[in-house]
Formats: sequence, structure tokens, C-alpha cells
Amino acid sequence: MTGVTLEEVDFEKLGGLVPVVVQDATTREVLMVAFANREALAETLRTGYAHYFSRSRLQLWKKGETSGHVQRIREIRVDCDRDTVLYLVEQTGVACHRGTRSCFTDPLLDQEATLP
Amino acid sequence: MTGVTLEEVDFEKLGGLVPVVVQDATTREVLMVAFANREALAETLRTGYAHYFSRSRLQLWKKGETSGHVQRIREIRVDCDRDTVLYLVEQTGVACHRGTRSCFTDPLLDQEATLP
Repeated sequence: MTGVTLEEVDFEKLGGLVPVVVQDATTREVLMVAFANREALAETLRTGYAHYFSRSRLQLWKKGETSGHVQRIREIRVDCDRDTVLYLVEQTGVACHRGTRSCFTDPLLDQEATLP
Repeated sequence: MTGVTLEEVDFEKLGGLVPVVVQDATTREVLMVAFANREALAETLRTGYAHYFSRSRLQLWKKGETSGHVQRIREIRVDCDRDTVLYLVEQTGVACHRGTRSCFTDPLLDQEATLP
């Protein structure tokens, strides 16, 4: 277990971004995946609340800024390649804009298996 | 909870790929993140074992094909935007090439907080 600095995070593979997996620190449910640039990670570290970079609006984004559904950071981990980040959070309200706690509710259908 | 077909998965945002979060189905530990194209998802559905697309080798890749550290699929879920996938797996051996069970072992250091 080695600490990783912000300078050591590899943002190059996705043009300045890293995928961020967001997991409920208590239930261990995977809540969502978003993307962060260097500034978003720095703001997350500085404030203790999850920040991301919106690929559609091209701007820094604090989760829950309008909805109130903020994510308090309990831990941030970086993977072995230094190109993916995991936030362990305390989720206020729900993570998904559809009103479900997690964005991952829908099964991928195995269509072959259902053929006659 | 609505089933999603392979045709409904959005591969466009990342040039033919979707990020795949891999979670241990029993312990709920996040093991790794990799990428899949349409073929990798189809092979995963067909075989019941996790397949990915290697961005460095530009080819389909079955996890554990050489190491034996395969991932048996228990569930596949797709997120609300249809552009990210979650594999819930039974991991044989370890997920990380460093020999740790998960790729996410290292904390991101808050350097500001450690300044005098």
C-alpha cells in the first residue's frame, strides 16, 4: 500500500480524464461512474466532497450541488496503473438522477440464452 | 429495473468502448476497471467468463487466460446512461497483476493537508 500523489495520476490515456468509480463506503454498493480531471480531484481532496468533470458541459461539477445529493468522501484510492480512481463515499439521498440509489440497476440481457 | 440489450449499450462516447467496473459478488470489493467493446461483452455473455478489450494490445482479452485468475460472471448490469457496465464476479485467485486481490489498494494522498 503506497500513497499516490496527484502528480502521479495518469490523465493521459483518456485525454486529461480518469474514470471514477463511486462506491458507498458502508454498503459497498457501486453507485455510479463519472470522470475527473486534475482540477476535479484536487477540489475533491480540498473540500471532502465528490467533484467530477462533465464531458457534456465541459466543466467542473460538484455532485449534488443543485439536488443536494452530495457525496462526502471517506477514502480515495488509485488503481495499480494510476489511471482509475475509486471514491468511497457517504451518499446523501440518491446517486442516480432517476431517483434510484445506484445508477447500476438494469441487467444486461443475454439474448442468445433466451432464444428457442 | 429494465433489461438492456447489447444493441442498447452506448459504445460511442469512448470510441467503441465502455468502462467495466468489476466487483466481487460476495465481498462487494471493487477489484478492477477495464474496457470492453461489443465483442468483449458478447463473449462475456456467451461464455460466462469476463472478457475485455485491451487498449494497449488492441485485442479481445479473457481475464485469467494465462494466469488462471478467471472471473466467473454472476451478474452484468448497465448504468442509467447505458455507457458503463458492472460485472459482479467470482474471482479465482487475484484480480491484480501485482498479486493483490484488488487493483485499488493505494490511497490518493492529500498533500495540502500534510503541509505545515
